[in-house]
Amino acid sequence: MSTMPTEEGPISPAELRRRIRANEWTGPLPSPRTVGAAPADSRAYAKMNLVVLPLAVAFDFVLFCQRNARAYAIADITEPGSPVPRLLAPDADVRTDLPRYRVFSRGSIIDEPHDINAYWHADSVAFLIGSSSCFDWALRTAGVQYETLGAYETALPCLPSRCFAGNMVVTARRFASSQDAVRAIQISSRHPAFHGAPVHMGPAQAIGIADLAKPDYPLGTMPAQTASDDTHTLYWGCGILSASLTGSAQIEQLITHYPGRLMVTDRLIAEMAVF
Amino acid sequence: MSTMPTEEGPISPAELRRRIRANEWTGPLPSPRTVGAAPADSRAYAKMNLVVLPLAVAFDFVLFCQRNARAYAIADITEPGSPVPRLLAPDADVRTDLPRYRVFSRGSIIDEPHDINAYWHADSVAFLIGSSSCFDWALRTAGVQYETLGAYETALPCLPSRCFAGNMVVTARRFASSQDAVRAIQISSRHPAFHGAPVHMGPAQAIGIADLAKPDYPLGTMPAQTASDDTHTLYWGCGILSASLTGSAQIEQLITHYPGRLMVTDRLIAEMAVF
Repeated sequence: MSTMPTEEGPISPAELRRRIRANEWTGPLPSPRTVGAAPADSRAYAKMNLVVLPLAVAFDFVLFCQRNARAYAIADITEPGSPVPRLLAPDADVRTDLPRYRVFSRGSIIDEPHDINAYWHADSVAFLIGSSSCFDWALRTAGVQYETLGAYETALPCLPSRCFAGNMVVTARRFASSQDAVRAIQISSRHPAFHGAPVHMGPAQAIGIADLAKPDYPLGTMPAQTASDDTHTLYWGCGILSASLTGSAQIEQLITHYPGRLMVTDRLIAEMAVF
Repeated sequence: MSTMPTEEGPISPAELRRRIRANEWTGPLPSPRTVGAAPADSRAYAKMNLVVLPLAVAFDFVLFCQRNARAYAIADITEPGSPVPRLLAPDADVRTDLPRYRVFSRGSIIDEPHDINAYWHADSVAFLIGSSSCFDWALRTAGVQYETLGAYETALPCLPSRCFAGNMVVTARRFASSQDAVRAIQISSRHPAFHGAPVHMGPAQAIGIADLAKPDYPLGTMPAQTASDDTHTLYWGCGILSASLTGSAQIEQLITHYPGRLMVTDRLIAEMAVF
């Protein structure tokens, strides 16, 4: 099994999931860029957003994701009642192997537990959805110079499916030069599993973002910048479920990962690139 | 609306679908390579395989396709009871806009009609699945020299979902040189919506094909070759539902397109490339 870096040194995805399952690891996932990591550690494993829904609305959610794949690219779907993501980590258990979860009931957060055993039912279906943290790895590996500004609610409508409709959330990145921005488009295009190419280039206002300095979802790694200049800023679809998403408010129980506490898979990011 | 070439000259995808709907066009779809077509006509529209299933098994089929996307890349899914493929052709009707269909009941062909109005129900769900005829267009446009040998049942198991399991069907193409084969891998990699990169290179026997000269599904355009030499032959996943597919035999009613009578969409093949 290959390894990923941690502060104590490299461990495998399976070992990391074991520690998470045992509640020995409840914080943010380790960065693939830990200083001093050995060359082999530069291989980074794909991390996934999680959405758990009852089977009754799972097909509607498939349609919603299919129609808005720049935001919600499905990488794996579990069979109803089975917590095993067969494509991405066949020995994993989505009920226990993320550091923390958010449980919603009809749109309101009712719990933020470290496992979801108590919320898992025979009709539960888990979706693993690509995270832009993965193409951030690809950008950094290629030496692209940029800052992540944050994630924002936009006025870009998602194409609805039956019970799901709402606007797209995007992540914004500011690049050091045109060359960096062009390279980012090339690199992200290789990764349709992680949002693919940008959905917008140009003024933030054109997609309904009033102030780039005030992200709706700070991503934590970089301070949001004061933004008088939109040059070299690009916007990608984001897997965060928008606050505008209808459907989620009608669903008796919907579970997501807690922000930053994604699912670690056995698949390398580079392995999931289309070329 | 842009145009596609026919023997009488270019017509739009919408006009072609109108003629098919009116049963004025019941044969194979026009080739995008019609001699004498104007330059604008070289733009080729994506054509799709069709599978129509009852909602009760639609989610299982989604899982099956998701797990075997090299063969069954879903490009659009209709809402239950709606015949409109919203992503690919929002004015189309999958019940009438293909030249011919095959209707199966518990695995046996019971009808090959020119429309499926009589077989459409409130719980019918249509899947549009990428066809390798589309990356053939991309290969030819790039001047790649090759012959399509046909489609073959293999011993490559698909990853099963609940009621669906079986082996993969592949298409085989023989290239004139290493350069052509390498270029084909590059070009097909751009088209994950149309099977993406090959699933096999090497001896046909290694994936359970006994005789390349005897395709299970002749594709019609080229004679199968006698095959003493596997050099420069590559194999791609194929959207044909394998004869080995379990599940289809249990389904009361399953509809596909008739071979070669695919669904014409409004989307250009080149527009659907990931880069």
